[in-house]
Amino acid sequence: MQEKLNVVPFVSVDHMMKLVLTTGVERFVTELAAYIEEDFRRWQSFDKIPRVASHSAGGVIELMPTSDGETYSFKYVNGHPKNTRSGRQTVTAFGLLADVGNGYPVLLTEMTILTALRTAATSAVAAKYLAPKGARTVAMIGNGAQSEFQAIAFKAILGVDKLRLYDIEPAATARCQKNLAGMGFEILACSSSQEAVEGADIITTITADKQNATVLTDNMVGPGVHINAVGGDCPGKTELHRDILLRSNIFVEYSPQTRIEGEIQQLDRDHPVSELWQVIAGKAAVRSKERQITLFDSVGFAIEDFSAMRYVRDRLEETGLYEQFDLIADPDEPRDLFGMILRAAKTKPVTAKVEAS
Amino acid sequence: MQEKLNVVPFVSVDHMMKLVLTTGVERFVTELAAYIEEDFRRWQSFDKIPRVASHSAGGVIELMPTSDGETYSFKYVNGHPKNTRSGRQTVTAFGLLADVGNGYPVLLTEMTILTALRTAATSAVAAKYLAPKGARTVAMIGNGAQSEFQAIAFKAILGVDKLRLYDIEPAATARCQKNLAGMGFEILACSSSQEAVEGADIITTITADKQNATVLTDNMVGPGVHINAVGGDCPGKTELHRDILLRSNIFVEYSPQTRIEGEIQQLDRDHPVSELWQVIAGKAAVRSKERQITLFDSVGFAIEDFSAMRYVRDRLEETGLYEQFDLIADPDEPRDLFGMILRAAKTKPVTAKVEAS
Repeated sequence: MQEKLNVVPFVSVDHMMKLVLTTGVERFVTELAAYIEEDFRRWQSFDKIPRVASHSAGGVIELMPTSDGETYSFKYVNGHPKNTRSGRQTVTAFGLLADVGNGYPVLLTEMTILTALRTAATSAVAAKYLAPKGARTVAMIGNGAQSEFQAIAFKAILGVDKLRLYDIEPAATARCQKNLAGMGFEILACSSSQEAVEGADIITTITADKQNATVLTDNMVGPGVHINAVGGDCPGKTELHRDILLRSNIFVEYSPQTRIEGEIQQLDRDHPVSELWQVIAGKAAVRSKERQITLFDSVGFAIEDFSAMRYVRDRLEETGLYEQFDLIADPDEPRDLFGMILRAAKTKPVTAKVEAS
Repeated sequence: MQEKLNVVPFVSVDHMMKLVLTTGVERFVTELAAYIEEDFRRWQSFDKIPRVASHSAGGVIELMPTSDGETYSFKYVNGHPKNTRSGRQTVTAFGLLADVGNGYPVLLTEMTILTALRTAATSAVAAKYLAPKGARTVAMIGNGAQSEFQAIAFKAILGVDKLRLYDIEPAATARCQKNLAGMGFEILACSSSQEAVEGADIITTITADKQNATVLTDNMVGPGVHINAVGGDCPGKTELHRDILLRSNIFVEYSPQTRIEGEIQQLDRDHPVSELWQVIAGKAAVRSKERQITLFDSVGFAIEDFSAMRYVRDRLEETGLYEQFDLIADPDEPRDLFGMILRAAKTKPVTAKVEAS
């Protein structure tokens, strides 16, 4: 696909929206989930480190690299809960794939939208393995930017068609309900999280406050429920009461990172957890007893971004939804970087001062 | 400068070349060196970690983040010594500055060219503090892509005007000599590294092999010389014989990283070294005795990239040498990411399948 060495296919926000729309959101998350499952199944072929976080008073900026030995990926992502006050996104992101063999980028893509899709797809993959069979009702506490993506992924992959929504801001719930109208959901807007969880097979918590909160208390979670805990993803940012964790069979993405960032930061360092890939690969059991609560303590891991970018890359040729982007220098003679500048002085309409010593 | 929240100023390779050319290489490295010095002087205000490296058989891909609490930066850079065989650069890079307060990128820039300039500027800053006074002759072993930038930085900042060049490939030396013609240097192409170092005040080693090599042996380095060791910058990649290190007063950028990557990986973990910023800030002495060899064991550190991007950013408004780049999503209502996609379905000429459930 790349004609010249110096240009990288770039998927802008605009192209990503077109890719999602022409594909259809349900098909997009379903295909993306298959990529995630495939990569989780070969988990041991990836280099893994906890993401590299730079924390500040207002939020966090993170780099999330991984590599399978052939392809390298990283994502840049921020999380700033107060951003909405200035009309900005809480989370924005972009990512890059590169060829491990020569280090050259092969894809640059927006990932604000793609992160919401991959987070939803990962939640749905986890629920496919962990939730009670036949689950059709999801309670969703926190109806912010990621909520519709979560709902659609659960519908596409698990057949969920009943939503019980709650947010501390009723306008958020109304917006989520409106956006999902006509997509085949039966939606109930609830006035409390207690009301939302009533009769739910799956409880999704996806709030944005950067602090330890108690979105769910112990008495709200009945036996056999699957909890999809998405919002607690920073040191000092959790959503569940510790007692719920003690009753649950806990599944994480990559435990060294989740110990730092997830709900399990509330537990002892040696509290037993399983990694989701182990379940997918048939190496870990889901329940040790009937009607056990399962908890997917999701913080988001680099391999999910790798899968998402791999999927987007595989769609480029067919859709043409990208542009060519001149990100890196490509001199004719690769050792002659300076000569490239000298030659540019002769061909480009600039005042060349380079030869004045 | 930013009119819209979702667009980021982007400096392409083309714009970077124009920026360098309109500025003049000497002025560019001189001003860049002043930014580096300023940031090294306030070293303690930065978050610092060794770069995050992903090693493979053919090379390395690295992420280099830092932050001063107001501005965050990271660079993506690869090092693949065999790339030149396929017409590619050994080193390519790009970087990003972001606002720590909201996590939004404020600059995306090519850094293949900029890295060569910042490496040269850092070498010259180090030599300004460490090299013998009145140094005019530099031996340069390794005449690859970074060599001309090094020469010009030493000329601009130290007044060096005599170059003694050596490379195992005579064509590289010839190219370097040709590129620097007419810039006020007296240049001698040498047929061995032994010949190159004769009478040099400063010895720069800047070879690219990813292995332990011995570009300089102990007997080649006379008293009082300053060594600017640039090429050894990976685990298992060094250029100097260990005996030289034992005779030298050693200066590094950030010791936790240099212990892993620099010449000093050959020494005990507790071998005394000083950090360059300590010299600049007046907190460390250069020599404990007359005519001592000084060694700048340079591997490249994130703060230098921060300085370089800060400099480029400060030049944007005046030069206009950038474009606006749609890197991140910016919905009108920040919590309504999904709604942005729905609205796009109504306004963009695509087959919208999103509402089909």
